[in-house]
Amino acid sequence: MTISKAALIGGGVIGGGWAARLIENGIDVSVYDPDPEAERKLNEVLAGADRAYEKLTHGPRPSKGAVSFCSTIAEAVAGVGLIVESVPERLEIKRKVYAEAEAANTTAIIASSTSGIMPTELQAELAHPGRLIVAHPFNPVYLLPLVELVAGEKTDAQHIEWAKDFYASLGMHPLHCRVEIEGFLSDRLQEALWREALWLLKDEVATAEELDAAIAYGPGLRWAQMGTMQTFHLAGGEAGMRGMLAMFGPCLKWPWTKLMDVPDLTDEFVEMVGEQCDTQAGDLTARDLEKIRDDNLVAIMQALKNNDWGAGKALAAYESAKRIAPPPPDFSGLVRTVDRIVPGDWTDYNGHMTEGRYLTAFSEATDRLMEMIGADADYIETGLSYFTVETHIQHIDEVRAGEAIYAETQVIEGKGKKLRLFHWLRHADGRLLATGEHMLIHVSLESRGTCEPEVVVADKLAEVMALQSKLPLPDGAGRAIGVK
Amino acid sequence: MTISKAALIGGGVIGGGWAARLIENGIDVSVYDPDPEAERKLNEVLAGADRAYEKLTHGPRPSKGAVSFCSTIAEAVAGVGLIVESVPERLEIKRKVYAEAEAANTTAIIASSTSGIMPTELQAELAHPGRLIVAHPFNPVYLLPLVELVAGEKTDAQHIEWAKDFYASLGMHPLHCRVEIEGFLSDRLQEALWREALWLLKDEVATAEELDAAIAYGPGLRWAQMGTMQTFHLAGGEAGMRGMLAMFGPCLKWPWTKLMDVPDLTDEFVEMVGEQCDTQAGDLTARDLEKIRDDNLVAIMQALKNNDWGAGKALAAYESAKRIAPPPPDFSGLVRTVDRIVPGDWTDYNGHMTEGRYLTAFSEATDRLMEMIGADADYIETGLSYFTVETHIQHIDEVRAGEAIYAETQVIEGKGKKLRLFHWLRHADGRLLATGEHMLIHVSLESRGTCEPEVVVADKLAEVMALQSKLPLPDGAGRAIGVK
Repeated sequence: MTISKAALIGGGVIGGGWAARLIENGIDVSVYDPDPEAERKLNEVLAGADRAYEKLTHGPRPSKGAVSFCSTIAEAVAGVGLIVESVPERLEIKRKVYAEAEAANTTAIIASSTSGIMPTELQAELAHPGRLIVAHPFNPVYLLPLVELVAGEKTDAQHIEWAKDFYASLGMHPLHCRVEIEGFLSDRLQEALWREALWLLKDEVATAEELDAAIAYGPGLRWAQMGTMQTFHLAGGEAGMRGMLAMFGPCLKWPWTKLMDVPDLTDEFVEMVGEQCDTQAGDLTARDLEKIRDDNLVAIMQALKNNDWGAGKALAAYESAKRIAPPPPDFSGLVRTVDRIVPGDWTDYNGHMTEGRYLTAFSEATDRLMEMIGADADYIETGLSYFTVETHIQHIDEVRAGEAIYAETQVIEGKGKKLRLFHWLRHADGRLLATGEHMLIHVSLESRGTCEPEVVVADKLAEVMALQSKLPLPDGAGRAIGVK
Repeated sequence: MTISKAALIGGGVIGGGWAARLIENGIDVSVYDPDPEAERKLNEVLAGADRAYEKLTHGPRPSKGAVSFCSTIAEAVAGVGLIVESVPERLEIKRKVYAEAEAANTTAIIASSTSGIMPTELQAELAHPGRLIVAHPFNPVYLLPLVELVAGEKTDAQHIEWAKDFYASLGMHPLHCRVEIEGFLSDRLQEALWREALWLLKDEVATAEELDAAIAYGPGLRWAQMGTMQTFHLAGGEAGMRGMLAMFGPCLKWPWTKLMDVPDLTDEFVEMVGEQCDTQAGDLTARDLEKIRDDNLVAIMQALKNNDWGAGKALAAYESAKRIAPPPPDFSGLVRTVDRIVPGDWTDYNGHMTEGRYLTAFSEATDRLMEMIGADADYIETGLSYFTVETHIQHIDEVRAGEAIYAETQVIEGKGKKLRLFHWLRHADGRLLATGEHMLIHVSLESRGTCEPEVVVADKLAEVMALQSKLPLPDGAGRAIGVK
């Protein structure tokens, strides 16, 4: 079942984050939130998310879904396939929302964003309880891949299966919590840590800033890629987790954490903690901090993508699923060899693409052209490839992070060991940004010496040359620096 | 007080990690560990750390300190300024080590790596208790910046001040735990989470792999850059932490975590957890996982360095502190403009520097040359700069991540608006890797149009040209692709 439109009941930090993720994937949303400020707040979340998505995925982005604001729940849920509930964590409020939604839509899947209320509780009063699932996301919902899926006793099992596919298609990592338990998995772990942090604040052992440093400079760097179990499996040395349990298990019985109770959230205590958080933020507003957080999340996920690990794997899968297969190349004219967004890490502190990245873009164009003439990954696997021996670039115009660029390529020479290419790199609006001329030589990867290409590539090149030799020699080809 | 040699008592995962961090910073270490396998195990940690350091810092690395193995504690501690104790978490073992060390060295600072025993307990039987501090690191010690510093009741306060400077000089982020408490700060938070995780395993609610996914795809990505307090401050929307406490504070009273007790670490339970960790690792050995973890940590810290945040800030500070100021340029010959290690993210899946990064290296050389002629950051701040308009590269040889490279530069033309440069990029062993010829034009950053440089730059360029015009025109200058 594909979804073209979803209703969002509640448009705060979580509902707004869902809105961003859904419209980014081309799904329309209708939003109901009684807060008179809801539309302004939601638009701010959407703007922040748009800024992050510009940097996150390097492929072309799909057309965005539309956002409409509704004045009743009935209006919002009419005709949608999915109802996402992100209202406060009070059972009676949630049940009231479901009752109103159910009166207007009897078939849509109802997905609660609850952080810990059991779906069996949530669905108890529904006329069609089988369609309620928990799909618990994490802030910022538009960036973090984790979504916990939980079924209640009456949930139709096939809806969980559907949800696994659906949320994965949004670039998320669905985690099916197989046993229904309050707080599910992630929040139980987070709450344990938070409870301890609140005690350390209450007892004035440390400030908010010190507690955060105790995570972000140490264990937190591990947790971005491996959970506690795998981390400690490695900390146990050659004996692994068994060694770790033998070594540190006894400490768990020592008074190293406050177990018994929760500090009373008196006004004074809340104020003290709030003030410490303000102090920690210093001159940075919440909006500033959100941008910093998002930039860091993007950079961390991209770093993990390069290493093909964890959240980076989810991002890579998302990118490749969303990438539209290019049409077969037509060599009667210039061929399109690059189609991408300028990523955030390709730019200098002014936001312009750095000099060096122009060659990265041309190198991508060269790789794509090589694929088109049969010198693809399988061919390289056989121990043959082309190496660039000479490059000439004309730097013509500037481009910024998040802007779309493309390249077109002409094969000037493609015979024997030689492959001479000319690329034009352009902004999506057609502006010429740079040209790249490249001489490549066919090599054996084993000997690192030159050799003739295999017949499959030589034939394809002959075919390409028959067409491309009809094109005029590009303006600037054969140009040298300092020579008139 | 600077330290030229340290003794390491205990050379396991933690002691080995200390050894790596110390020798990387030019400090000799003498190691005592009664394990007959100690030398092999420590050398494996050192090899892993060396591999990580190749990729971590981009500046030239200092000369390494030496490692010597000793057969007694007395031998190891003789004449050192710092004794690092990393033996098992049993008070009687630690006190025995201190007694032996004290008999042979009465002045060195004793730094315990304990994860949670109070320094007041550790120092109770010392003849010179003032010199004992806790300096608690995190695995892998050679990469994670966090080190918790804790004083006991009898600790000399000036040793904590010294330790802050000393560990910062090793590239670490010292966190002074101002109130002495068992488990300090970071482990109390970690243990709370781990205890909950063990319960979820014990109750068979989830597997080790599921629990890790519940962290690494969600909260863990936040914790690599912000702790729980700042994260929840942002999750509270416009109401911040105060709103978060109002919203989720009540949940802390709900039965969302197991508080009361610790699961009994029966043989069966330990075996069950150990097996789940093995399953999770699949075909990957502990060594494989360590390499993956280290690559991810390096990539995450470099990503954060680009964003000037958290652990990345510590890395940047370390790099700039370690960078040796270059000698003033001598333009009577070629000038040295690049001196760096090829970072891990500059290479393809085969470990070779990618085509595009050759231009990144040349771009760094150009920036450095611009600084030398007075077109530095302050000059650019005034709204003037040089833009590259044309580039010609000869790709000659390959280079791998972790290898040292340098560039030398000749100014071919430097008059009026024009600046024509020729760079030779070489491997540290002298092999020529590539040449880069670049034409730059002086521009106004406001109008984005060309203009004459200021007198300060024009004069410096005239001075440089008077010297460099005596050099022969570089082989390959003015060369064009496809033109004989």
